[in-house]
Amino acid sequence: MQITVVGSIAFDAVSTPFGKRDRMLGGAATHFALAASFFDTVQVVGCVGEDFTDSDLAVLRTRGTGVGDVERVAGGETFTWRGEYGWDLNSRRTLATELNVFAEFEPRLSDASRSSEALFLANIHPQLQLRVLELCERPRFVALDSMNLWIESERDALIEVIERVDCVILNDAELRQLTREANVVAAARALLACGPTAVVAKQGEYGAALVTQDAFFALPAYPLENVIDPTGAGDSFAGGFVGYLARHLEAPITDSVLRRAMAHGTALASFNVEEFGIGGMVPLEAEDIQERVSELSKITQFEHAPIELLSC
Amino acid sequence: MQITVVGSIAFDAVSTPFGKRDRMLGGAATHFALAASFFDTVQVVGCVGEDFTDSDLAVLRTRGTGVGDVERVAGGETFTWRGEYGWDLNSRRTLATELNVFAEFEPRLSDASRSSEALFLANIHPQLQLRVLELCERPRFVALDSMNLWIESERDALIEVIERVDCVILNDAELRQLTREANVVAAARALLACGPTAVVAKQGEYGAALVTQDAFFALPAYPLENVIDPTGAGDSFAGGFVGYLARHLEAPITDSVLRRAMAHGTALASFNVEEFGIGGMVPLEAEDIQERVSELSKITQFEHAPIELLSC
Repeated sequence: MQITVVGSIAFDAVSTPFGKRDRMLGGAATHFALAASFFDTVQVVGCVGEDFTDSDLAVLRTRGTGVGDVERVAGGETFTWRGEYGWDLNSRRTLATELNVFAEFEPRLSDASRSSEALFLANIHPQLQLRVLELCERPRFVALDSMNLWIESERDALIEVIERVDCVILNDAELRQLTREANVVAAARALLACGPTAVVAKQGEYGAALVTQDAFFALPAYPLENVIDPTGAGDSFAGGFVGYLARHLEAPITDSVLRRAMAHGTALASFNVEEFGIGGMVPLEAEDIQERVSELSKITQFEHAPIELLSC
Repeated sequence: MQITVVGSIAFDAVSTPFGKRDRMLGGAATHFALAASFFDTVQVVGCVGEDFTDSDLAVLRTRGTGVGDVERVAGGETFTWRGEYGWDLNSRRTLATELNVFAEFEPRLSDASRSSEALFLANIHPQLQLRVLELCERPRFVALDSMNLWIESERDALIEVIERVDCVILNDAELRQLTREANVVAAARALLACGPTAVVAKQGEYGAALVTQDAFFALPAYPLENVIDPTGAGDSFAGGFVGYLARHLEAPITDSVLRRAMAHGTALASFNVEEFGIGGMVPLEAEDIQERVSELSKITQFEHAPIELLSC
């Protein structure tokens, strides 16, 4: 079923121990769409400046993604993020955030975007997330991302959106900060009490965990020796996760479906980090994803064959 | 088959957000033995001071652990570690390390300890680890732990021991520091090239990963909302891991056996962190472990049921 994503479209300038790149197409909506479009039609809602070229737009359009709600602001420049990563890629420093046209972003949804059954509210101001939620007609599954900035400055609004979505996707630090719970499992359970039926804790190089009312599931990241640029990994994960779920909305979402969605998200994120920017996503083919999901199931399984233990 | 562990026996004074405890029985050999003794007879090689009481010794003796090679140094005091943990338990600060009798520790192995088929060289000076290795007669499986201090100051000796053991168990930061590889999978593979057939990367709240020549396996930590004191978790893990393997040494160790060993290590570590010191380990029964291993297999499994993905 169709998926709408509302979020940033950006140019990223990134420096990692493996090199530097300027003006790479990026942003949450871009990374999400490139992943989710493997599963179903995606509609992107966002804004860009006059510097956004036709070839940039062509990338967004991959696998039929709709870009009718990507507003091109006359005289404006596209949102730009500059950042650098430390030697093990676990520390990230933002060097500059030039919001440009994104500062005045007012999501406008066409009938096409409003009619999607799955909705991903990428990391934008919680008030905008709320507005988009109200505009949508019949979303059966809504997931949300956010960031430390909104947790600090717009906590109440963020909680209000969280109360109305099905799934929250945040990293461990954000979960802790939002709930003021030091323990991530406890933090996730605290959020479940607000309304969502699922909380995904993104854990970077360690993978991701899924907490629902009745179950817990954790999946390591796909093991890679050549991680080049983690930018966008979380949104690629969300794209694979929400994309997979969008294909299973005809019935209530089961625990097995959620787990497989986690695996697809994890696989997509792993391709994302193997190259700078969207370099790992553009050449990707369906078989590559299938293969990696199958690998993931192999590297995580063990059979419990009880042996007699001593006790005295 | 019998297991020998050589390592510290200590009194720990620990402060966590959940409270403070003084003079708790601890140390690598203690945590290891309490876990490994569920699987087979353990022989502890270590030293204590005159302040070490009979009731402390009785705890070490749990499930028949041999303490004949625990030297009681006349006039000496037992090694003491004081530390405190940050609010999410991920940061640890050492307040004091009083080596006391441990400073002059010279492992002496009785015939009983020398004849073990499994050997765990806990975190001690690499030269002592080498000496113990030479004293042992027929170990079929040897695992080693170490720490940043020895990686910095005794790197060559440490590499020399690593070349002679079957398995290295280190945390991510130590693996990176030792190999100067930022990527943990690459770091583990670099160590495999030195000789060991398995490398375990301990990842704290995220669990542990196993890297062998042909395979990769990762297991999350058992999800807990009430982690109280992480001290000794790594050694409890090692106790469950090596203990399980010690029961499977009659044939070459297979990948499935290694995976189940990881699960048993993970289960044991989870009990360790639920109480201060050894408080979670002392009342533990065999059924508790079985149950948690079975739970671990459930929370990590998913079935890959391929769906058709879009490509164009």
